[in-house]
Amino acid sequence: MAIEENRAVGESEEDTAVVLIGHGSKLPYGKGVLEELRRRIEMREIFREVRVAFMQLDSPSIEETLRNLAKDGMKNIVALPVFLADGAHTTEDIPEKLKAAFEGAWEEIGRDVNIVYGKPIGVDERIVDILLDRVKDAMPGE
Amino acid sequence: MAIEENRAVGESEEDTAVVLIGHGSKLPYGKGVLEELRRRIEMREIFREVRVAFMQLDSPSIEETLRNLAKDGMKNIVALPVFLADGAHTTEDIPEKLKAAFEGAWEEIGRDVNIVYGKPIGVDERIVDILLDRVKDAMPGE
Repeated sequence: MAIEENRAVGESEEDTAVVLIGHGSKLPYGKGVLEELRRRIEMREIFREVRVAFMQLDSPSIEETLRNLAKDGMKNIVALPVFLADGAHTTEDIPEKLKAAFEGAWEEIGRDVNIVYGKPIGVDERIVDILLDRVKDAMPGE
Repeated sequence: MAIEENRAVGESEEDTAVVLIGHGSKLPYGKGVLEELRRRIEMREIFREVRVAFMQLDSPSIEETLRNLAKDGMKNIVALPVFLADGAHTTEDIPEKLKAAFEGAWEEIGRDVNIVYGKPIGVDERIVDILLDRVKDAMPGE
């Protein structure tokens, strides 16, 4: 198993699985949002598989989702942190879990799996547009 | 001081201040993203003031930003949680801090300030587009 960050590993979109990684929460809202984003990406019919995984509290876990994809024969996985910005979760906690997925008893099944770890959402003019919409939604008379 | 949620309080965009509320982090990335989003919203020249505030770890705090806006004479404030989804932070922690800003010694200065608390980003087709861009950025040959 190799974890690559933005490096060529030879996959195309048609043989790639995408894993949307969420923070996880005691409350149901975050999971609901992530599952709906997953559904909408799946509807675009770009990638062979689109799944969710949660860093904590919600299921499935990151390890579980990666192992299931490997058991289903997926060799190329893009793991995307669905976070607004980098922080300790995206730079430490999630990479640790990506590495842990195919250690020990899972080493064999993960041997040929390439995991590419993407970047969080970050600054984007589309986020600016959304925030302005949310401000206007909250204002009187809207 | 009145905290309103999506209710008419009589303001227009020209006399409204927007506060972008971030999670806060030990690492600098989240603050950098929020400050750049603030700058871009300010550049649109829609609102009288656009400021940032952090729920924890980073400064300024939510209380500090709200008190400074009140001291500057702002009467209408839209406080927007810059989070992807609702969770304990947006439904419990941040509302508590919004309420606490003008309690005790700060009651007088906050008496005429209307705070409208907005909604997080949530499911939005523009988020789907951004996530697809991030997946493609991470893929080989891009």
